[in-house]
Amino acid sequence: MVGSRFLFAIPGRVGAAVAQPFQAHAGTGSTSGTIRIISALRMVMEKRRMVPDEAMAMLDGALARLRQEAPLVHNITNQVVSNVTANALLAIGASPAMVQAEEEVGEFVRHARALVINIGTLLAPQRAAMLIAARGAKAAGIPWVLDPVAAGATAYRRSAARDLLSLGPSVLRGNAGEILALAGEAGLSRGVDSLAASTAAREAAGALARQGKGMVVAVTGATDYVTDGTTMLALSNGHPLLTRVTGTGCTATALIGAFLGAGLPPMAAAVAGLTALGVAAEDAALRATGPGSFQVALLDRLHGLEDAAMREAARITPG
Amino acid sequence: MVGSRFLFAIPGRVGAAVAQPFQAHAGTGSTSGTIRIISALRMVMEKRRMVPDEAMAMLDGALARLRQEAPLVHNITNQVVSNVTANALLAIGASPAMVQAEEEVGEFVRHARALVINIGTLLAPQRAAMLIAARGAKAAGIPWVLDPVAAGATAYRRSAARDLLSLGPSVLRGNAGEILALAGEAGLSRGVDSLAASTAAREAAGALARQGKGMVVAVTGATDYVTDGTTMLALSNGHPLLTRVTGTGCTATALIGAFLGAGLPPMAAAVAGLTALGVAAEDAALRATGPGSFQVALLDRLHGLEDAAMREAARITPG
Amino acid sequence: MVGSRFLFAIPGRVGAAVAQPFQAHAGTGSTSGTIRIISALRMVMEKRRMVPDEAMAMLDGALARLRQEAPLVHNITNQVVSNVTANALLAIGASPAMVQAEEEVGEFVRHARALVINIGTLLAPQRAAMLIAARGAKAAGIPWVLDPVAAGATAYRRSAARDLLSLGPSVLRGNAGEILALAGEAGLSRGVDSLAASTAAREAAGALARQGKGMVVAVTGATDYVTDGTTMLALSNGHPLLTRVTGTGCTATALIGAFLGAGLPPMAAAVAGLTALGVAAEDAALRATGPGSFQVALLDRLHGLEDAAMREAARITPG
Repeated sequence: MVGSRFLFAIPGRVGAAVAQPFQAHAGTGSTSGTIRIISALRMVMEKRRMVPDEAMAMLDGALARLRQEAPLVHNITNQVVSNVTANALLAIGASPAMVQAEEEVGEFVRHARALVINIGTLLAPQRAAMLIAARGAKAAGIPWVLDPVAAGATAYRRSAARDLLSLGPSVLRGNAGEILALAGEAGLSRGVDSLAASTAAREAAGALARQGKGMVVAVTGATDYVTDGTTMLALSNGHPLLTRVTGTGCTATALIGAFLGAGLPPMAAAVAGLTALGVAAEDAALRATGPGSFQVALLDRLHGLEDAAMREAARITPG
Repeated sequence: MVGSRFLFAIPGRVGAAVAQPFQAHAGTGSTSGTIRIISALRMVMEKRRMVPDEAMAMLDGALARLRQEAPLVHNITNQVVSNVTANALLAIGASPAMVQAEEEVGEFVRHARALVINIGTLLAPQRAAMLIAARGAKAAGIPWVLDPVAAGATAYRRSAARDLLSLGPSVLRGNAGEILALAGEAGLSRGVDSLAASTAAREAAGALARQGKGMVVAVTGATDYVTDGTTMLALSNGHPLLTRVTGTGCTATALIGAFLGAGLPPMAAAVAGLTALGVAAEDAALRATGPGSFQVALLDRLHGLEDAAMREAARITPG
Repeated sequence: MVGSRFLFAIPGRVGAAVAQPFQAHAGTGSTSGTIRIISALRMVMEKRRMVPDEAMAMLDGALARLRQEAPLVHNITNQVVSNVTANALLAIGASPAMVQAEEEVGEFVRHARALVINIGTLLAPQRAAMLIAARGAKAAGIPWVLDPVAAGATAYRRSAARDLLSLGPSVLRGNAGEILALAGEAGLSRGVDSLAASTAAREAAGALARQGKGMVVAVTGATDYVTDGTTMLALSNGHPLLTRVTGTGCTATALIGAFLGAGLPPMAAAVAGLTALGVAAEDAALRATGPGSFQVALLDRLHGLEDAAMREAARITPG
């Protein structure tokens, strides 16, 4: 997936292409797509840590299960994307709740099937609420996912992300800069965002996952990587227009939360959430004439996506 | 109207249908629509507390008046839907203002023609501002409408909703769970949401309205009920896609506020607000291919809706 | 540009027309458009403070430069429009960041290329953050733009706007009521909004600019005026639908911030930002069937707009 971020949507190599008005995107089979497929095939030949069929099996019936369960997903997220996040969760079939007051999150989270924490527009009262909710989720055995937005950008964010990470999320999803910052391998997120591709953060993701005792780490970028510290998968669905709409990275995190709420294990939930968004984005781009219509079509496609179509379009390889 | 809620959009019987990708919605005449009409006709035969013509007369010229007046509507609402609320008010012809600081709401509300209070993402400073604004509206004789989002879900919400309710809103609009919670007839909103249809809250609405000295109560669901404690009306416009977009319940509340601001009495304002949204939703669904395009078309249709078309499409019966 | 405002979107003369459902808007050449052009031509004959060619030259290559630079634009804005603002910045090619905690804005702003401050839904912690960020921008030589939303509506807003203005923004953008309020020439913004056209604030804008030592002031309305205290330009692009979508005024401010971040001087950044939005709005209106589809098309057009098309469609005259 080519994830975007409301906070640091800095066009890197992919962004440079889409910052120009695009003339045509009739299909997902761009040159870079072709390169991706060739590269993926090569990886399949070379690596055998997890064969595609095993990875694909994770997606089996995931959407049907999500829609059957319609899990209540508790979000404490940033004000930029709260509307988009709720709509994406509704579109795919979950039931979003956006309760965020420190006075009530501890009571509320116990009713939820999953918790999503996103530090995008972090304020002090919200930070306190996040810690209460994460502890409550942990105590109640409710899975949760952390989106450490711009974790490396300021001291305030570094400490907030670190505190939350220490509470053991089921899944951590960030871009290369955020994952590197959390792994202590990089300082300021900005520089990393523009310089490093998500490949550069693969090692950091693996290290974080191994340290996290069962935590799954997802690094999103032109190619996404998902790892539990042992297995590493590469996901290649998505479209560059995702970088021209705010909150698509946050949407990815929320969708992972939805699949966690439907009962999928962390690795499967991460793969299903990222693949659902990536495939829906590819469909949406075919109907869009720019980022505005893309955003609309993306919600329509998340709503209309079915398991068979998702599995057929999924591009998952050993990472 | 089939109202949705950003906070607890839990598909019940209606939601179960739309959580599956929908293949076709070519018209509002679904099976459930047909059942609705037959059921409505039966109610017309059986009950005579208010004949449809009287109820319909409430809608006469309501939109023209709203657009003539372009009332300034002061909203203190939640961050998930503030953009959607403002856009819906603009689309239908009102002038939204979203001032929310406790330092200024008392001064500001005096310039407004109506006040809308929605406790969706309630935080402590906002709660204080709501109480100040509601008191100011009451003192200045400005009508106001309360949306007690998830009133029963936590102790914090129960007390906030109770405090606001004691200040005497002109209209109270909630779903069945919220109205039941406020009536002390149910505990946690979640359970109620999934189990009870809005019909179950009709008695609670009547009781609240009789207690509220002139307060009108609207319970929204597959069928909406509006009552002043004596008369009860049933409104049957709407579309299941309303449950797949966040903030449509909040939009209903804001539209009631717009009609209050245009000078309609509470009962007429509630009927006009819910009917305008329901009819616009039916039109919008004809043009939509999912919840994203539905949301866009809904704003277009609220903008384009005229009194004659609204009255022709309105389905109002004794409740 | 016909700017709108989430806070005070009170239809004046233009609004009165669009508050009615519109039947057709097949082109921007409405009667008022024709009057505008004739009026503009007359101004060109009568005034010679800046010839159109000089003004037009400001637009040369502005969009290409913005997309090349992809400047990081730090926004501290209101919760109603934060999503819209981020999306407009992404659509035109900038990189938005919405960091707003007082604990981190001083550290963060130093990484930005421009700062946008908008007091729409002002709360006390945000107000403190705005002052810290503005001081930080000033100290680091980073250009910034101020949007004094509803500056005259309450004492709280008057003082917040005054404090920020004293820190010397590069550009101040408001509607007539706000600019008049800041100039101390009027009291309550509401009354002014409905009574005064933007022409009435031209003198106030000039006075503020002369006082501001290099500050450029932009007053938006049916016609926009941009002045540095010596030169006055009138910009006449736009469409009445801009008054029926929330946050278009805030978007104008953010786009000015994007051009400041790309290195344009304040006068050129203001002209480029307002013209880009106005021209994109004219294009979008051709594809829209109401405010919902207009908003979507506006993002598409901001993304697709190129320098040649913008310059060809620009209507800039001496003011």
